[in-house]
Amino acid sequence: MRAPPQHRPLRPGVLAERFHAVRNATRALAAPLSAEDCAIQSMPDASPVKWHLAHTTWFFETFILGRHEPQRAPFHPTFKYLFNSYYNAIGDRHPRPYRGLLSRPALAEVLAYRDHVEARILALLAEGALPADLLSLVELGLHHEQQHQELILTDLKHLLSCNPLRPAYQKTWPLTPVKARARSWVRFAEGARQVGHEGEGFAFDNESPRHTVWVNEFEIASHPVTHGDFARFIEDSGYRRPDLWLAAGWDQVVARGWEAPLYWERAGDSWQTFTLRGMVPIEPNTPVCHITFYEAEAFARWAGARLPTEAEWEVAAADAPREGNFVESGALHPLAMREAPPEGAIAQIFGDVWEWTRSDYAPYPRFRTAPGAVGEYNGKFMANQYVLRGGSCATPASHIRATYRNFFPADARWQFSGLRLARDA
Amino acid sequence: MRAPPQHRPLRPGVLAERFHAVRNATRALAAPLSAEDCAIQSMPDASPVKWHLAHTTWFFETFILGRHEPQRAPFHPTFKYLFNSYYNAIGDRHPRPYRGLLSRPALAEVLAYRDHVEARILALLAEGALPADLLSLVELGLHHEQQHQELILTDLKHLLSCNPLRPAYQKTWPLTPVKARARSWVRFAEGARQVGHEGEGFAFDNESPRHTVWVNEFEIASHPVTHGDFARFIEDSGYRRPDLWLAAGWDQVVARGWEAPLYWERAGDSWQTFTLRGMVPIEPNTPVCHITFYEAEAFARWAGARLPTEAEWEVAAADAPREGNFVESGALHPLAMREAPPEGAIAQIFGDVWEWTRSDYAPYPRFRTAPGAVGEYNGKFMANQYVLRGGSCATPASHIRATYRNFFPADARWQFSGLRLARDA
Amino acid sequence: MRAPPQHRPLRPGVLAERFHAVRNATRALAAPLSAEDCAIQSMPDASPVKWHLAHTTWFFETFILGRHEPQRAPFHPTFKYLFNSYYNAIGDRHPRPYRGLLSRPALAEVLAYRDHVEARILALLAEGALPADLLSLVELGLHHEQQHQELILTDLKHLLSCNPLRPAYQKTWPLTPVKARARSWVRFAEGARQVGHEGEGFAFDNESPRHTVWVNEFEIASHPVTHGDFARFIEDSGYRRPDLWLAAGWDQVVARGWEAPLYWERAGDSWQTFTLRGMVPIEPNTPVCHITFYEAEAFARWAGARLPTEAEWEVAAADAPREGNFVESGALHPLAMREAPPEGAIAQIFGDVWEWTRSDYAPYPRFRTAPGAVGEYNGKFMANQYVLRGGSCATPASHIRATYRNFFPADARWQFSGLRLARDA
Amino acid sequence: MRAPPQHRPLRPGVLAERFHAVRNATRALAAPLSAEDCAIQSMPDASPVKWHLAHTTWFFETFILGRHEPQRAPFHPTFKYLFNSYYNAIGDRHPRPYRGLLSRPALAEVLAYRDHVEARILALLAEGALPADLLSLVELGLHHEQQHQELILTDLKHLLSCNPLRPAYQKTWPLTPVKARARSWVRFAEGARQVGHEGEGFAFDNESPRHTVWVNEFEIASHPVTHGDFARFIEDSGYRRPDLWLAAGWDQVVARGWEAPLYWERAGDSWQTFTLRGMVPIEPNTPVCHITFYEAEAFARWAGARLPTEAEWEVAAADAPREGNFVESGALHPLAMREAPPEGAIAQIFGDVWEWTRSDYAPYPRFRTAPGAVGEYNGKFMANQYVLRGGSCATPASHIRATYRNFFPADARWQFSGLRLARDA
Repeated sequence: MRAPPQHRPLRPGVLAERFHAVRNATRALAAPLSAEDCAIQSMPDASPVKWHLAHTTWFFETFILGRHEPQRAPFHPTFKYLFNSYYNAIGDRHPRPYRGLLSRPALAEVLAYRDHVEARILALLAEGALPADLLSLVELGLHHEQQHQELILTDLKHLLSCNPLRPAYQKTWPLTPVKARARSWVRFAEGARQVGHEGEGFAFDNESPRHTVWVNEFEIASHPVTHGDFARFIEDSGYRRPDLWLAAGWDQVVARGWEAPLYWERAGDSWQTFTLRGMVPIEPNTPVCHITFYEAEAFARWAGARLPTEAEWEVAAADAPREGNFVESGALHPLAMREAPPEGAIAQIFGDVWEWTRSDYAPYPRFRTAPGAVGEYNGKFMANQYVLRGGSCATPASHIRATYRNFFPADARWQFSGLRLARDA
Repeated sequence: MRAPPQHRPLRPGVLAERFHAVRNATRALAAPLSAEDCAIQSMPDASPVKWHLAHTTWFFETFILGRHEPQRAPFHPTFKYLFNSYYNAIGDRHPRPYRGLLSRPALAEVLAYRDHVEARILALLAEGALPADLLSLVELGLHHEQQHQELILTDLKHLLSCNPLRPAYQKTWPLTPVKARARSWVRFAEGARQVGHEGEGFAFDNESPRHTVWVNEFEIASHPVTHGDFARFIEDSGYRRPDLWLAAGWDQVVARGWEAPLYWERAGDSWQTFTLRGMVPIEPNTPVCHITFYEAEAFARWAGARLPTEAEWEVAAADAPREGNFVESGALHPLAMREAPPEGAIAQIFGDVWEWTRSDYAPYPRFRTAPGAVGEYNGKFMANQYVLRGGSCATPASHIRATYRNFFPADARWQFSGLRLARDA
Repeated sequence: MRAPPQHRPLRPGVLAERFHAVRNATRALAAPLSAEDCAIQSMPDASPVKWHLAHTTWFFETFILGRHEPQRAPFHPTFKYLFNSYYNAIGDRHPRPYRGLLSRPALAEVLAYRDHVEARILALLAEGALPADLLSLVELGLHHEQQHQELILTDLKHLLSCNPLRPAYQKTWPLTPVKARARSWVRFAEGARQVGHEGEGFAFDNESPRHTVWVNEFEIASHPVTHGDFARFIEDSGYRRPDLWLAAGWDQVVARGWEAPLYWERAGDSWQTFTLRGMVPIEPNTPVCHITFYEAEAFARWAGARLPTEAEWEVAAADAPREGNFVESGALHPLAMREAPPEGAIAQIFGDVWEWTRSDYAPYPRFRTAPGAVGEYNGKFMANQYVLRGGSCATPASHIRATYRNFFPADARWQFSGLRLARDA
Repeated sequence: MRAPPQHRPLRPGVLAERFHAVRNATRALAAPLSAEDCAIQSMPDASPVKWHLAHTTWFFETFILGRHEPQRAPFHPTFKYLFNSYYNAIGDRHPRPYRGLLSRPALAEVLAYRDHVEARILALLAEGALPADLLSLVELGLHHEQQHQELILTDLKHLLSCNPLRPAYQKTWPLTPVKARARSWVRFAEGARQVGHEGEGFAFDNESPRHTVWVNEFEIASHPVTHGDFARFIEDSGYRRPDLWLAAGWDQVVARGWEAPLYWERAGDSWQTFTLRGMVPIEPNTPVCHITFYEAEAFARWAGARLPTEAEWEVAAADAPREGNFVESGALHPLAMREAPPEGAIAQIFGDVWEWTRSDYAPYPRFRTAPGAVGEYNGKFMANQYVLRGGSCATPASHIRATYRNFFPADARWQFSGLRLARDA
């Protein structure tokens, strides 16, 4: 994960403040949880919260302390193996499906590990001891940690959903219903456009280089598809009509018996859904979430529309303010729009739900990975995944931007993933 | 799990004392463990310690309190579902492979559940309120709980073995090596023999009725096969010669890549094994354990002998004192004989390791299951399993007897299972 | 498959006649089939007819010609590998699940292989060139071939049943319905009994040695359970009541969605079943077939009875005439009794359907396998299988006897397997 | 599979000639095969030759005869079910993995089915009875049949490769080695380019509409990667270095133990490969084939290059003559270049091997599927597949064009799939 050449590292003082803030934010997410909540893995795709707490620390210990002070003893000799996620260049690693078998180290020991590494990084930053390339890696480590903050919430949500007791992560529910707003369409003209990251701010390597794409005239919806929209799709036999689905998607519908998005359950004539605040009735005007690429694609076909490409999405989002319902709102669930946006405006394009695009996750023209282990950060996953854009209600606000490329396999549903419609003009 | 008709229930006072002792013994097993240790499930065959703590309590709540005070509210309305193991007559149940997904109820809440149910049972016993059939069920529940005490240890051992940190359940290792003793053979004459349980003491329904079997003249080994014996089998290519194996066993050897008993690892020219006290070198004179029926059967063929039938085993054990290395010794591992037994005596037939027999687990002649849920205790498992006899170093001493029938599938290895050779006279 | 020591080999002339007859009978079974019918494998447990034709020939080429004339070139150098079924001592072999991938050798070439080996064996028999041990092996090879004759029919039936065209092996249906006959019970007294083979006639090694068993007083049904009996079990929710089933059986019912025996299909209010003559309505008075051990066991429990042990079955069958509906009748399906047997007689105990017993397939006391490859014939399969007795409508009449032990896993259904009830007196 | 609006149907006379030719070409492919060769299915992805012969006929019967003469009885009432490949709008269908279980209809009956439908189609063409939309569907059916001609060869090759006898489809081997030629690079300038089909000739719907894409400056190799190139990749530990691979590709390498392309086997220090003419040594100067997208992508990274996008490929191929080593050459294997192409020319871009591109199979801008069953031809497969271009040695010459888009999952290897390198200029 090479920072692009234009990227200027943050000053150590600013970086130290941000380090402090991001690391504390992670710990705050885990604060309401018991050691048991943090230890269990509910499926191979998800990781225990304890593992996230340790792995994000391992990142700093390995890439900063391990390079700057290679003679220094690690906090624990086995952690290099236990908490390596997927870096072949670092060495062997504990297999992903077994992350939930580790009752030791105890949560308390992992928190001590965090303390230990944090103290040393902060000391090095205070001393101004780190060279520019390691400062860049510290900054990368913070963005990396923010990604895991989101995963802590989505992985935990999945775990709690497996428990017949239906436990809530947070009990109070601050949301109030709002009125529906009709979908409107915003048009964009044909032409050569520039997409991708450029400039001084941080971005991941997969957002670069900025380059030209040809975009046809298109229209994009003013706001995401809602829970209410999706309930109508279901009532119209959306999950029983193969003509609406990609063949690979229909195979999944049949094999797994899908009848609604993940976490939805029938409650008489209506639907309820599992949230980080327990089971609640669906709120029709909030963006729908926990759907696969296949469900997004089938819904769009049913609605007479299509998914946007990631270039279209980025063109549409380029001028939108980077505001929205992020993790800092405390909602931990998509929210309805409180007031109508101005005519012709794109609303809710950041936050609330990740929006599936029709684009597979592929390298941008002239994309190159960095040499060494950090080169494994993004590039090697560019196959059989689709791009999602815009961040969600579990994403930290400072983590997102218009060029940000998230990616998941077409059948992943446990993220806060939704969609926004597009159509040919 | 019908108590046989001859069985006379214990007096309430004696039962209360035993109830107190057995329940405390269970809690003592869990005492050194963290909530994390108790929450995780390492494979579908094993259960989390927390589940064992709850399920054994569920047994008393369901079969004693639920019958005696059916109007009484349960401790928690969902526990009936969560902690039912396999009783179809009680109703639906949480699927076994998902027992490890329950971070809630917390360990502390499960311990409170234990307190709550124990207090009520003890009060009823003190009042003399329970009729004879429920007193019998209390006694059954204590034997049931002792079975789960053994499973707590074997399931925990499996979990700890999956952790690259190789954690120990207990640190100190009290064992001292002893000298080998040559195997001798004890002969038994042909004839009609009586096997199975009869009389006043408690026994499970699968041990009854006592009945006649015809036993041919046979010889049985003076003591179990040892770690050293088994190491010689391995060195003699035991795991690479299909002619030594049952076809179904050889299929497992190939498919799973077995090269030694479970928990064994090469350490240079020698072997070490994982124990509840961490990794230790194998002690050649201790009984071998953690082998499947298939490995026991192949070893016996290699040794020019065979496994005993369960009838032969019971004939041989009938007069042996019920002494041995049980869980109360604190060893938590098979021990070597300290002193040679008298000539012609059967040694170590109780405790140390469960001994595989050549007998499938089938109903005794005229065996009948009890009506209702407790009838599901034993009878429905009488297919595709083999009988083991004698108890192990994880079995409570008061739990075992010569007629006791344990049973596991032929490919199970995570119990303290070993073997004793037999041969035709 | 050691012929027991008492066995006296047939004279070469008699053996040649029998060789001629058995080999021709195999070919006659394949005569109505196309090369395509003979090439396909419908499941890993079943083999293509072409494979059976070749493997039975491989047996003679390997064990007779290969020993008597080891310098002689084999018919084809690869056939040793392709048509070895499971003899590790002979060498590597083509994996069983891939037997259906062999479009070559063509059926015609396999028939030429049969001609070639047959001619040589007959020549050796005519010359009187074979020593006694090889004569015994020729006889063994014929009994082996008869086992494969039955498998040709059952494997073919499974293949044809997979075809939506519902093709028939033979078109005409010679059967006429008959009246039901009430089940009566025949009682046998308690005592030490002799079971197993002894004497001059041929038997497989697994039938020896003859030995003593203790048999309790028991009653056995006059005739097998019928299609009509089984339909009543289904109508009485037999497949929806877990209390009737062994746990492992119930798991199968749920996992595979069993609602009736293999090949049964609902036809309005009634049932039809697939036969080697196409789909036909079930005939209520014929013995039920294509059930697993689990279904047999559940039916018996429902009927207030149990399965006999194999010793009980053999005691009951010992004096019955070896007559019945065998493959020579041409029915290829169980038949109803034409006339009532005398009071107290055991009927239909040979032929019609193999009868599941409650006994696992285990070695008889003092059983020893022969050294070398033929020792793999039976002994290595003595785990996780149950014994069936009596032969079926697909068994050659000369192949069966009262001591004959057939065996299949508890979940096998594609044989003509049924049951006869027993109960405690 | 909507013919694009510009497409003008062929005249009936021309169509009849082509119908005759294409149908005969299919039959000629099957002519050297036995009924057994045609009946077997070697894996779920492949189909029996007999099924291809029937399904291509079903296409004409269903879409031409079924629409034009709906009252006419079908050739066989069950064939609609048996030979429907994946058209949900037509109705239920025989599951793909079971296509190899059909010994009936016999090959002869399928050939009679072909005769029957062909005669009727030719009669309708001769009468001029078909309206323009059905004439278009006849033409579509011929292109469809040509796709299955290629699959007949690749599916058959896979089947024969599974046979330890290593049978050859054709015995004589006409190929002579030629000298290596150095790879040169051809440069293309940046700019907006037009790709996709337009005009009167036939094309599949997935090639339309013609549209603008932005292409960066790039270079593409003069000819495909060869067997010799790929052997060097293997010798340089290409299959043992995770840094060369996409993560999903490396997972496959580990899980399936890949060490070389499909059909390659070590022969001492060299390699041989299975072909439709049996096992042969690899010819270093011929294009490599039978590699997955992952292997193509890893090779390109090892070579310091990358895969072209499908737009780059089409730009490069736009002016190349549609000549090459197609199925009509009779080679049935990639061939080496006989003479050097002119400097700066693109060689072997049609025929020999399908060339993997870096582009996922996605809809072109404004792509719409046709209503009804033929709309299922292409569009519903646009997920989790990658585009291949250029045709192979198993493709009919008249079937290919520069805009043609073939597609397979990233882990498919049984097609004649290879690669051509590209790089940034």
